Amino acid sequence: MTFTRLVRFIHEGVTHYGDLVECTDKGFYVRKLAGSVTGSFTNTSEENILVDQLLCPIESVPIFQCIGLNYRKHAKEASLEIPKYPVVFTKPADALAGFGENIPVCSGAQPMLDYEGELTVIVGKDCKDLLAEFDLAEYVLGYTAGNDVSARNYQLPEASGSQFCYAKSFDKFAPIGPWITSPRVIQDPQELRFVTRVNGEIMQETGTDDMIWSVKQIMVHLSRGTTPRAGTAIMTGTPAGVGFFRKQFLASGDKVEVEIEGEMTLVNTIKFEK
Amino acid sequence: MTFTRLVRFIHEGVTHYGDLVECTDKGFYVRKLAGSVTGSFTNTSEENILVDQLLCPIESVPIFQCIGLNYRKHAKEASLEIPKYPVVFTKPADALAGFGENIPVCSGAQPMLDYEGELTVIVGKDCKDLLAEFDLAEYVLGYTAGNDVSARNYQLPEASGSQFCYAKSFDKFAPIGPWITSPRVIQDPQELRFVTRVNGEIMQETGTDDMIWSVKQIMVHLSRGTTPRAGTAIMTGTPAGVGFFRKQFLASGDKVEVEIEGEMTLVNTIKFEK
Repeated sequence: MTFTRLVRFIHEGVTHYGDLVECTDKGFYVRKLAGSVTGSFTNTSEENILVDQLLCPIESVPIFQCIGLNYRKHAKEASLEIPKYPVVFTKPADALAGFGENIPVCSGAQPMLDYEGELTVIVGKDCKDLLAEFDLAEYVLGYTAGNDVSARNYQLPEASGSQFCYAKSFDKFAPIGPWITSPRVIQDPQELRFVTRVNGEIMQETGTDDMIWSVKQIMVHLSRGTTPRAGTAIMTGTPAGVGFFRKQFLASGDKVEVEIEGEMTLVNTIKFEK
Repeated sequence: MTFTRLVRFIHEGVTHYGDLVECTDKGFYVRKLAGSVTGSFTNTSEENILVDQLLCPIESVPIFQCIGLNYRKHAKEASLEIPKYPVVFTKPADALAGFGENIPVCSGAQPMLDYEGELTVIVGKDCKDLLAEFDLAEYVLGYTAGNDVSARNYQLPEASGSQFCYAKSFDKFAPIGPWITSPRVIQDPQELRFVTRVNGEIMQETGTDDMIWSVKQIMVHLSRGTTPRAGTAIMTGTPAGVGFFRKQFLASGDKVEVEIEGEMTLVNTIKFEK
């Protein structure tokens, strides 16, 4: 893996993967990469290209594996007992969206719409039965900011039979980005801080050291007798401060930011459909 | 869609899709088809080929969308209230297996292993926001028998936080087949009967008229603001009679059959791994 911060962009009408060199007031300086998430990347040029927009940093994901109830303070806020294993649910491939995209919300999903800022891990290669002491740098493509957008009206037990998937699986309900930072840059994913803001106001703020299950423990659990594929996005759970417990939901036009401090900020705008 | 019963097989070293013509003591008579699940199929030959083995009737699925608690008698057996909407969980693409395959079970998933015979629907084309009166024949590729294999020790609320996905997502925990029968043959999926047997003994037996949510209602729900892709497998829920409530679990070597009466029988053998 030859990148530090993986981006995707359009240059002269063609979509490329690239390595982010610098963010400036003029735009993003990037270098083209050849390759793919399921293979590997190689630098094809030392030329810095200026682009004014970044695409979703990966073209597609096989699936989102998501962890519920993974921060001690959020478990307390939700008054839920901590189960024996990580709590797992999914989002389908079409939930993927990128930095700057509007999140379309169909009419049924509008009444109790919520954010969940989450550290998101992109799996770097197919794996199965990972051992507890496996090397993150070998199996993780990188880390990114994610928002596990949730329509709480469909998540309530009486609506869902307590299954989380449906409420969180609408198209583009899993924005990630703006880039994927290599594990050579983020060496310990349990030493990050991230913040979620709605229209500039801080709603969630945590260190990833409050996680109940570490990234490593989650990947061991998800690969038991199962094959997470390269490109799989793992959303590692949300900290305290979601709208549901504030009784304060998202409206059309709201701007949601998820910032991994010192590293990147994902920004998306909510757009209610008719 | 030019087939009646879609199969996959190997002929002269090459894998083909085909239409099943006849099952005999000698084997399966099939005709080659060109095309794919995400496109369409065309007959390329009127020649009947004899093969002795069928592969999984589709090469891959984007995802399994599964419905929990969809038979009135099963809901009663589980003493669960019927929620406002279908109960939705998923299995990943690697859960797919075919007729005759062994189901490998890793050591962690062995203590409380269970079957769930299910009518399984294969989506025929990408769809979104299906209306209540949509035409099944337009959007359904066909129907097949499925087994939603479940490791109950990981499904218990104290292990899973009540999320079903993990316990059901091990590699090959979703065998389907042996073929996919066109909606031109099965015109009403709510008029079928199916039976699950373990080592020849009947464990589950139901009419699909006991379903709480019909195939049509499920597809409307799953396509709300979301895009089920062609090839998506929808497991429509299991009837009363699962092992969990019999306190009787599967052992290595057990043969599980799911029969859609008069149409097909899926057979798989459980194989515990060390």
